[in-house]
Amino acid sequence: MKKLNGGVCALEDVLASGLHAGFKQQKKDLGLLYFPKGVKVAGVFTKNAIQSHHIKYDQALLRQNHSFKAILTNSGNANTCNGVVGDETVLQMVNTLARTLKIQADEVLVCSTGVIGVPMNLNDFDKKCARLVCQLTKEDSLSAVEAMMTTDTFAKQLAYEFKVGNKTVKIAGITKGAGMIHPNLGTMLAYLVTDADLEQAQLHSLLKDVVGDSFNCLTVDGDTSPNDTVFLASTGKVKITWNDETLAGFYRGLLELSQELTRLMAKDGEGATKFVEVIVKCAQTHADALKIAKGVATSNLVKTALYGQDANWGRIISAIGQSQPEYLQADKIAIAFESEAGYVQVCKHGVGLPFDETQALAVMSEQSVTIIIDLGLGVSNSKVWTCDMSLDYIKINADYRS
Amino acid sequence: MKKLNGGVCALEDVLASGLHAGFKQQKKDLGLLYFPKGVKVAGVFTKNAIQSHHIKYDQALLRQNHSFKAILTNSGNANTCNGVVGDETVLQMVNTLARTLKIQADEVLVCSTGVIGVPMNLNDFDKKCARLVCQLTKEDSLSAVEAMMTTDTFAKQLAYEFKVGNKTVKIAGITKGAGMIHPNLGTMLAYLVTDADLEQAQLHSLLKDVVGDSFNCLTVDGDTSPNDTVFLASTGKVKITWNDETLAGFYRGLLELSQELTRLMAKDGEGATKFVEVIVKCAQTHADALKIAKGVATSNLVKTALYGQDANWGRIISAIGQSQPEYLQADKIAIAFESEAGYVQVCKHGVGLPFDETQALAVMSEQSVTIIIDLGLGVSNSKVWTCDMSLDYIKINADYRS
Repeated sequence: MKKLNGGVCALEDVLASGLHAGFKQQKKDLGLLYFPKGVKVAGVFTKNAIQSHHIKYDQALLRQNHSFKAILTNSGNANTCNGVVGDETVLQMVNTLARTLKIQADEVLVCSTGVIGVPMNLNDFDKKCARLVCQLTKEDSLSAVEAMMTTDTFAKQLAYEFKVGNKTVKIAGITKGAGMIHPNLGTMLAYLVTDADLEQAQLHSLLKDVVGDSFNCLTVDGDTSPNDTVFLASTGKVKITWNDETLAGFYRGLLELSQELTRLMAKDGEGATKFVEVIVKCAQTHADALKIAKGVATSNLVKTALYGQDANWGRIISAIGQSQPEYLQADKIAIAFESEAGYVQVCKHGVGLPFDETQALAVMSEQSVTIIIDLGLGVSNSKVWTCDMSLDYIKINADYRS
Repeated sequence: MKKLNGGVCALEDVLASGLHAGFKQQKKDLGLLYFPKGVKVAGVFTKNAIQSHHIKYDQALLRQNHSFKAILTNSGNANTCNGVVGDETVLQMVNTLARTLKIQADEVLVCSTGVIGVPMNLNDFDKKCARLVCQLTKEDSLSAVEAMMTTDTFAKQLAYEFKVGNKTVKIAGITKGAGMIHPNLGTMLAYLVTDADLEQAQLHSLLKDVVGDSFNCLTVDGDTSPNDTVFLASTGKVKITWNDETLAGFYRGLLELSQELTRLMAKDGEGATKFVEVIVKCAQTHADALKIAKGVATSNLVKTALYGQDANWGRIISAIGQSQPEYLQADKIAIAFESEAGYVQVCKHGVGLPFDETQALAVMSEQSVTIIIDLGLGVSNSKVWTCDMSLDYIKINADYRS
């Protein structure tokens, strides 16, 4: 996998722009991806029973399975729980952009993220769309990513080039994260684009698989957003003879991109001072491995101990028990912490091991810490990404109406 | 219900004491309830798959269904995940106390709470037991409650007198809470005592019912402790002709005591600045009502908004959707906040209502705030108690190895 610059603009026939349209106080809040030659798109969406107005609209469009030319995103307002006005807002956004780009309205997908339950102000939206289209660039999708950000502290975009069979394909993605992040099947906003030629059904099947091992393995605060959306789009530029081998090769690239974007989101979790990877090994079933890794990664007590740089395995073993796995034997559990400063095992056979607190503090003080849990039962493993829970998490969320 | 002083010592034949035995740095950490004439006892315990060493021991004793004379409690050390040593510790604690009190070892129940995974130091435990027995008093159980406390900031004990049929009975309880509080069938440490004469099977059936509407309706931080234990004991002093009516009368008293103790625990949640009641009305099923109330009460984003005194109903409706009820219609949901400063409805038909932010701030600024959610579907209701999530929650848990 060779890393490329420019985010999704690393692919040909992908243009991007972003600007301040007034949904937020001053930062960029309206972003556009434009595919002049059209793309096939698959999407997965939040399982929250409350859903943003854009979700039903996009789902219906995707079922029509035609070519799409634009993905429009605003931040600062989630356009969620706005009743009839919310649905009208989606239509007005889509129609205005389609007129400006001189494309069909049903070629535009739309996503919103931000405050829930406040109707959007679309005054002068035609002028804002005109500016947005004017500013489209082939160079870099950075401004479109910036326009997606809410409490994110850095822009998250990646692009790779790799071989599938004898062809070179590109794959790239942009995403936003930070808070209300506990994806459930669908996930936050993420747009992935490839030039490998794939039909919508293939895109959808690949996307569903990859989400389970990437975006769905992320938690910041245990709260699932009503707006979570991931799109996978193909420009179709590179024709490939698809067979088990080329599909598997493409899937590996897609997985690496998705996991790396997921890790970036964990690193930029609200208030995060640490990136944390929770690895569960030797579970009886994959479902148990994932349940336990997510349980540990979601525990406020584990996350505050990580913030306190405390090798507090008692809270970890309690969170393991709390996650109610189907198979668990307390006296087979082993727990260790690992970081660039070293490795320290703290629990074996379900019982505490004597360990050097100074060494443990050194391991826990690193910016990136791995918790390794060995259940000693079977052969199933899982990996979940999260961050610690800091004073800033509280400050951000006591202040921000989102 | 007439309120009495003295905690569980408000009942005859109940003695209590508590002292500092060295499990904590300086505060009381070893407590005793002594019933010289014996009591019948029923217990419920945590559903965490990792369980403290005291739990299996107490469960086996309770199955023998004889009379019990003592409940011994230590704080500062959870005696959890200590392997064979942990089981031996339970036996040594029980045997030492039984010798000191000159009772049978199987008349002693024992509970621990505190740090997980550190073996207990029982040096000079016989001398500590001797002092504990020496200090037994009939006056007040306060010292025993203080010896149960971990991060609790005030002692929680209550006693009531009320009529069951033509008889006057007493019921009293002591409890500790503060952190790792998200009871699941069993719950934190709570000891309830009555003088109404009840067999163990009756006690157990009453306790199981009452826990579902009291202790299990509490969450502080979403983390279920491996040590949670509730006992209900009867001294048998007051003979009652039990029938549907007297049982229902007794149950009402038991429920009021248990709910009031639960509310005290929510008020003393780690770092709490606010007591919060979440009421769900008009759900299709009771299971949905409870799932939603717990989902809202457990959401970090709802709890940080409460700390920020922000009438942020968007986070509440998102938490409703996230809790995955069986029946939900977004366009029937209504949300309001209520406190001593007034009532403000913020959402109707699933859509935001214009509301006066100044009035809302006044409502949210009170120390006690109620969130009222009307699902508009059926006739099932539920009530859950929690607290807000403050900067102090993080400070407490980044500092304390528990």
